[in-house]
Amino acid sequence: MRIGVDLGGTNIAAGIVDDDGKVLAKKSVATQAQKGPDVVLADILRLCKELMGESAVPVRHVGIGIPGTVNSSRGMVLMAPNINFKNVPVSQEMSRLLNIPVYLDNDANCAALGEARFGAARGSQNSITVTLGTGVGGGIIIGGKIYTGTFFGAGEIGHQIIRAGGNVCGCGQRGCWEAYASAASLIRQARRWEHRITTSMIAEMAGGDLEKITAKIIFDAAGAGDGLAREVIDEYVGNLCIGLGNLINIFQPDVMVIGGGVSGHGQGLIDAIECRMPDMVFNGDVLTKFVIARLGNDAGIVGAACLGE
Amino acid sequence: MRIGVDLGGTNIAAGIVDDDGKVLAKKSVATQAQKGPDVVLADILRLCKELMGESAVPVRHVGIGIPGTVNSSRGMVLMAPNINFKNVPVSQEMSRLLNIPVYLDNDANCAALGEARFGAARGSQNSITVTLGTGVGGGIIIGGKIYTGTFFGAGEIGHQIIRAGGNVCGCGQRGCWEAYASAASLIRQARRWEHRITTSMIAEMAGGDLEKITAKIIFDAAGAGDGLAREVIDEYVGNLCIGLGNLINIFQPDVMVIGGGVSGHGQGLIDAIECRMPDMVFNGDVLTKFVIARLGNDAGIVGAACLGE
Repeated sequence: MRIGVDLGGTNIAAGIVDDDGKVLAKKSVATQAQKGPDVVLADILRLCKELMGESAVPVRHVGIGIPGTVNSSRGMVLMAPNINFKNVPVSQEMSRLLNIPVYLDNDANCAALGEARFGAARGSQNSITVTLGTGVGGGIIIGGKIYTGTFFGAGEIGHQIIRAGGNVCGCGQRGCWEAYASAASLIRQARRWEHRITTSMIAEMAGGDLEKITAKIIFDAAGAGDGLAREVIDEYVGNLCIGLGNLINIFQPDVMVIGGGVSGHGQGLIDAIECRMPDMVFNGDVLTKFVIARLGNDAGIVGAACLGE
Repeated sequence: MRIGVDLGGTNIAAGIVDDDGKVLAKKSVATQAQKGPDVVLADILRLCKELMGESAVPVRHVGIGIPGTVNSSRGMVLMAPNINFKNVPVSQEMSRLLNIPVYLDNDANCAALGEARFGAARGSQNSITVTLGTGVGGGIIIGGKIYTGTFFGAGEIGHQIIRAGGNVCGCGQRGCWEAYASAASLIRQARRWEHRITTSMIAEMAGGDLEKITAKIIFDAAGAGDGLAREVIDEYVGNLCIGLGNLINIFQPDVMVIGGGVSGHGQGLIDAIECRMPDMVFNGDVLTKFVIARLGNDAGIVGAACLGE
């Protein structure tokens, strides 16, 4: 048994995870980021103690996924703006208080590790888990282990530039993959068609309120045959595949896991990706397998529980 | 002592390499690719036997760098169009004939390994060696070892797309980094200015023959203050930095080694890169060090000699 903690900007979720990657018990509390790191860490400590108290067998260690940059060797959060952490040592003190080892890593890395050990990339050696949500995040697994980069900042795959001089990204650069492949970008691309969208199934499915358009609605409208939605999805998948192709040309993993909100479209998305990939990959020989993430919201907990193993 | 062999499309170069990475003796013959793999392998065998005969101490093993895709676990060349090799087993038979282990890997991977062990990236754990020549090649070193990708095809960094829909690349795609950052692309970008180039220092330095323009001439003309050359170099370095920035965002190595013809410009090129990198890297914090390759033409021999260690 081990405990995995998924520390997010909104909630702290912690779970007991068994040796088969199953979450046996789960607890969560709101993240009181505005009260400072001490309060957040005290809440994590309390959740862990409660779970340890309820566990029938001893808990071997705790792993925590952090929404930011983490020095995983020193167990220290370097920078996590969403939760107001900057240069906060975590592992040593918490390990002393719980009397078991406490490991830290970045949350996207934890999700990738979870998928690699117990999810969609189970059995693979080298995998990349791409999260298509508000942004585009990624975790890289090499030889079964998290690849953090030399200075713990690797895996910013959403900020590879695929269209230099193109759309403005949240990071300030132009042409980042994230500015084309995130769920937010997909919605933005649909809204760009001001005149056509009002008469499309997209608007209809959103109840006439363009603010309520989601990635799912656009995929659903495309599936139902809406012309505009199909065009938007087609362009979206094209840009998605450029970044995926770049990652394969550079890294050639066995498995590429697609997670996040957009991955809800499931096999249809995988089919669309696989159809385009031979054009994107050098020599046209696509050996990497594409799969939808399997652990859903639990990926962070399961992956964090695998840290240090 | 070990032997490193650099099998190229034009020449086979082989050398005895000592434990400090020094090439003590070197031999080469023309590559008779048109006569088929058997003749090429017999020539390599002969070079190795000659070098082994001349070595005062026993040779421990032979490493061979191949211009193509190699299954390094099985010691087999999968595909190397330049030398007419396709699915050719090499290591087992050659090892039997020489009575020492024979290792194979891709030539760009060998060069990267050479630079990591004994060259510009010595002492680093994670490095990428980028070769800016006719094309843009790369070798990735992770944890001190060559990262081949799951199917031995990783490191095609030149075929990451940085300007989707842009310049046509030799691979058939549009917008590949190679189509902007290779020495050939630099020359093409200068020649594009048909009217201005004839009165520029570029044409003067090429003796009035536009066919004789080299990357070095363009860099030299820019250094001497030529307006057109400066513009062309500025655009070139901008595109170069997009690909380098992508690699750092994804991979964050300790060291990025720049080799190939364009790297002849030396520290001036490094300065130009370092000046732009903060804009290219997520968070603006450039921790990766840029250095010019140090082993020159011997990188392939030295790196091949390090295989299997």
